Amino acid sequence: MNLEVVDRPEDARHWVEAYQRKNEVVGVVPTMGALHRGHFSLIERACNECDRVVVSIFVNPTQFAPGEDFAKYPRPLEEDLRAYRRYGVGMVFHPAPEAMYATDYCTWVEVDGLAEGLEGEYRPGHFRGVATVVLKLFHALPANFAYFGQKDAQQLAIIRRMVQDLDMGIEVVACPTVREEDGLALSSRNRYLAPEERAAAPALFQALRAGRAAFHDGIRTAEGVTRAAKNNLAEAPLFRVQYIECVDPERFVVPSGTLSGRELIVAAAHLGTTRLIDNLSLEEGTV
Amino acid sequence: MNLEVVDRPEDARHWVEAYQRKNEVVGVVPTMGALHRGHFSLIERACNECDRVVVSIFVNPTQFAPGEDFAKYPRPLEEDLRAYRRYGVGMVFHPAPEAMYATDYCTWVEVDGLAEGLEGEYRPGHFRGVATVVLKLFHALPANFAYFGQKDAQQLAIIRRMVQDLDMGIEVVACPTVREEDGLALSSRNRYLAPEERAAAPALFQALRAGRAAFHDGIRTAEGVTRAAKNNLAEAPLFRVQYIECVDPERFVVPSGTLSGRELIVAAAHLGTTRLIDNLSLEEGTV
Repeated sequence: MNLEVVDRPEDARHWVEAYQRKNEVVGVVPTMGALHRGHFSLIERACNECDRVVVSIFVNPTQFAPGEDFAKYPRPLEEDLRAYRRYGVGMVFHPAPEAMYATDYCTWVEVDGLAEGLEGEYRPGHFRGVATVVLKLFHALPANFAYFGQKDAQQLAIIRRMVQDLDMGIEVVACPTVREEDGLALSSRNRYLAPEERAAAPALFQALRAGRAAFHDGIRTAEGVTRAAKNNLAEAPLFRVQYIECVDPERFVVPSGTLSGRELIVAAAHLGTTRLIDNLSLEEGTV
Repeated sequence: MNLEVVDRPEDARHWVEAYQRKNEVVGVVPTMGALHRGHFSLIERACNECDRVVVSIFVNPTQFAPGEDFAKYPRPLEEDLRAYRRYGVGMVFHPAPEAMYATDYCTWVEVDGLAEGLEGEYRPGHFRGVATVVLKLFHALPANFAYFGQKDAQQLAIIRRMVQDLDMGIEVVACPTVREEDGLALSSRNRYLAPEERAAAPALFQALRAGRAAFHDGIRTAEGVTRAAKNNLAEAPLFRVQYIECVDPERFVVPSGTLSGRELIVAAAHLGTTRLIDNLSLEEGTV
């Protein structure tokens, strides 16, 4: 199948709408490129469930806080395009930053409450940038289904909330986190890790598992689950933890009463200069 | 022609998309109901230019600042529907407030800069509510053209900016302000005016004309034009002016240098408890 590469939002929209007019179901996988098996799992699922699949590649400047890794974020475009061809993706939307943000750009989407804690606290402006660019991508790619990874759990909750609040006709599909054999969640940023950091990295997931194990051992408070995870990670070398919390999976607040078992343990930590995030549901069998 | 009344955003969207799939051009006229000849001019133009016309009626709670007239805003639904039938409108989207804003609603659109001065200063939160509801209406009614009155000039500039920034596939059409014979701009709020207020009301438009006349007499600064308008209104009874300014028609800032002639004179004033706004381009022949 031909892979079209489109760089203007209106051309992308016309591509999607042309297939929808023929009653084809279109799926979109928004990415920042630098593909790994996590992205491939989204693309495979989209290809299984939809007649046409579009992938966007856009390293969105507005979701990087000052001092973050926007400039050095990996952009292996040719390698990414080869992978898309292999999977049968129909179109890649790859806009230039200027095509997405005019010099006098001034319109922003804010999801109050949900975007304030956790990632929102440590990455000021991050979720404003995410919500805004995802809305713009959904306007350029008005697909029937949009596929996101569960690894960015707070982002996923914010996008779901935005889609519902703004009456958007797109269904958000969450896909399980894909992990290395030792448990490390796949991330385009893992390539930044020095060898000794990479060796230490699985401790983050181990800590989340320790939190979940505490729940299944009878601990029923967010504080107790969080303590088990923190104590576990305290034994690991190199980590500087930003947060570990047990939160409601839709509202991302710490529940005050008895846990339901649907909560997520969410964590962010630095290994050297690399920032890792991960999360795990208290429910057994989830990844 | 049958007039369908739809109250759920997804049903409205399906209605619009069904006609677009048949290559029909759809126009939307967003209103808060309480129709007057200003609305009719928008609807007539939409009916002339589009195959199907949709009107929304929604008195949007989030664009009223605390203490404003949300509760008493007129809602003559049956009368409005009769008018729509007369004009050949195909569908009326008339959602309940709960259908637009769930109890945990939390997603907002902000247009920075443009939304801060003038109306934005005197009506805190107004343009956040306007931008948000118009985006939601455009999602529910993804028409080809959307018709707005020039009377709400700052709102129009904000909506144009939002549509451009968010890559929305809808063309915004601005229609001239419709006026009473004595010059008063039509507004659903004019019905609030007591007889002596109504008699005094045309002085607002006269003041704008005095500002424009000053420009055509050779005054070339925003300050000079504004002074002429203010001096003119100072002679009128009953008015309490909030602002009169001469501004750039896209950015709504006061130009510091020589006027180009494309600027607008914009004004807001109270007559008793009723707030009136109006504007006039410096260009001759405009209304």
